[in-house]
Amino acid sequence: MAQTLKDIGERGLIELACSIISKDESFQAIGDDCAFISLGESYLLVSTDMISQQTHLSSGMRPWDIGWFVTAINLSDLAAKGGIPLGILLAYGLPKDMLVSDFKEIVKGADTCATTYKTSIIGGDTKQHPELVITGTSIGIVYKKECMSRRGAKEGDIIAVTGALGKAAGGFLSHKNGKKYESLSGLIHPNPRLSEGRNLAATKKVHCCMDISDGLSSSLYQLQSLNNIGFNIIASDLPLDPVLTSLCINEDEQEEYALYFGGDYELLLCISEESFPELKKAIAPASLTSIGKVTHKRSITIIKDGKTRNLTNKGYEHFLTHPFL
Amino acid sequence: MAQTLKDIGERGLIELACSIISKDESFQAIGDDCAFISLGESYLLVSTDMISQQTHLSSGMRPWDIGWFVTAINLSDLAAKGGIPLGILLAYGLPKDMLVSDFKEIVKGADTCATTYKTSIIGGDTKQHPELVITGTSIGIVYKKECMSRRGAKEGDIIAVTGALGKAAGGFLSHKNGKKYESLSGLIHPNPRLSEGRNLAATKKVHCCMDISDGLSSSLYQLQSLNNIGFNIIASDLPLDPVLTSLCINEDEQEEYALYFGGDYELLLCISEESFPELKKAIAPASLTSIGKVTHKRSITIIKDGKTRNLTNKGYEHFLTHPFL
Repeated sequence: MAQTLKDIGERGLIELACSIISKDESFQAIGDDCAFISLGESYLLVSTDMISQQTHLSSGMRPWDIGWFVTAINLSDLAAKGGIPLGILLAYGLPKDMLVSDFKEIVKGADTCATTYKTSIIGGDTKQHPELVITGTSIGIVYKKECMSRRGAKEGDIIAVTGALGKAAGGFLSHKNGKKYESLSGLIHPNPRLSEGRNLAATKKVHCCMDISDGLSSSLYQLQSLNNIGFNIIASDLPLDPVLTSLCINEDEQEEYALYFGGDYELLLCISEESFPELKKAIAPASLTSIGKVTHKRSITIIKDGKTRNLTNKGYEHFLTHPFL
Repeated sequence: MAQTLKDIGERGLIELACSIISKDESFQAIGDDCAFISLGESYLLVSTDMISQQTHLSSGMRPWDIGWFVTAINLSDLAAKGGIPLGILLAYGLPKDMLVSDFKEIVKGADTCATTYKTSIIGGDTKQHPELVITGTSIGIVYKKECMSRRGAKEGDIIAVTGALGKAAGGFLSHKNGKKYESLSGLIHPNPRLSEGRNLAATKKVHCCMDISDGLSSSLYQLQSLNNIGFNIIASDLPLDPVLTSLCINEDEQEEYALYFGGDYELLLCISEESFPELKKAIAPASLTSIGKVTHKRSITIIKDGKTRNLTNKGYEHFLTHPFL
């Protein structure tokens, strides 16, 4: 039978597209969700992310939240490179029966997110579409010498994460439990780590970095594949979000959400053990937590209560079934 | 009753969004579908355009054509500024039951268009979506001194157009008449005027320029509103596409299509009468045709057989009813 997209999944599709397109030497986009354009001593960073009603938007989200969300996740791609945002473009596909007041709220949410992160909405497009779909494009700039890439992890490195894991899962569980709108925040109001990314990049001590959009496990597998290394994660070191731990009494369940749920938009980085204190200081008051080590062996394992097991390569991936939803 | 998007139309929505977003002095995007970012002596140009099955794609289009189309229309926005493309990003919303072979063809069409115009696909996104939707983002660069804007038309200027009008309408009519795939070309394979735009910009003699995506009339009304001027168009001077004239015997009907159908992606420019010969030479072998004059009076009129009438402000506009489809 002829293959359809659900047979190969999002990452299979990306690999396929990358194998077809003609590469230009000045671009290094492949394997990264941000494109780099060489401009003298800097890279221009450009990244695009599409969201739509069915696959991204929680039923508890209000129009304002949708605008914030699409802007935030696009800025997160710049954060992972240490970039300074230059602007955001938003292309809207909108149902013709949508209320004008709802559209206004989406634009306001997007504008608030952009200005919060010292950038602005500089362009876009509006088109009629049966279902709400919004594509954001973020443009940023970073000195080549400071740019953080997804490649560069070394055996013996620490693997560290900013902030907490499971914020989005905590929001999702609150919503599922019928909790009030405010408790959804971790799911619907991601905060791109722009200043943290910038401060980390300025140290020039980060070996590789990416933002965790589809879950920690999925991100680790992406870094493993790009860097030809492995990871050994310490379960008890995972910085769990307090909302998640308050809602989920079972420890194994907490860990599952932290590893596989996605939507946290924290930065995941590989650094040398010696530079850890300096980097921790560089991003204060945000936290940086060491969660394990980069290994020569290509497997990804997690140690819990003295037992080691392999981490499953699952997480949010389009065209495949979501492990939680 | 509460207003919905179909009550205000695409241009109403754009105005609304522009009134909400916080403006930054370095950006001049408002009223233009391309954003400008100041980078030393140059502007970085960024433009985004979304297409979807329902609103853009003719039933005669094959997957390869869709890839070409979305890439071409995004490059057209750079052409209108005189920009040199630096790259294209494509964000795909794809049905999970789409054939992998169809996706491959879309990517190949996009790649062929990009390489034809000496640029490349440098990034993107793939997401699951009930209906095919693709958002392109084009990135380009132009010297500030050479950049063509939508503002700058002067009373007494010539209004001129590159190539021919009604190519897309000719393709549409061929398709409607059951003609073979090849005859659809004018509708489904737009050719962005990149080298022509570049050559025009290099003369520094263009007062204002835009690409005609939604029809000549619609574009004239956009220039009128941005420049606070009017136009007097000579019907017999409109350069009509030969496919259109071969399919449409009635002259009034030919004119209707040329004025209102859209999809031609030619450049429309205001220039002084003296510079016309130089600009004509600059874009050869493509043609540049004078179709009328810029007037002080804000009306847009067309002269035919000695009679003057007002041009209707209609054309392809999302959320409203298309005059032809």
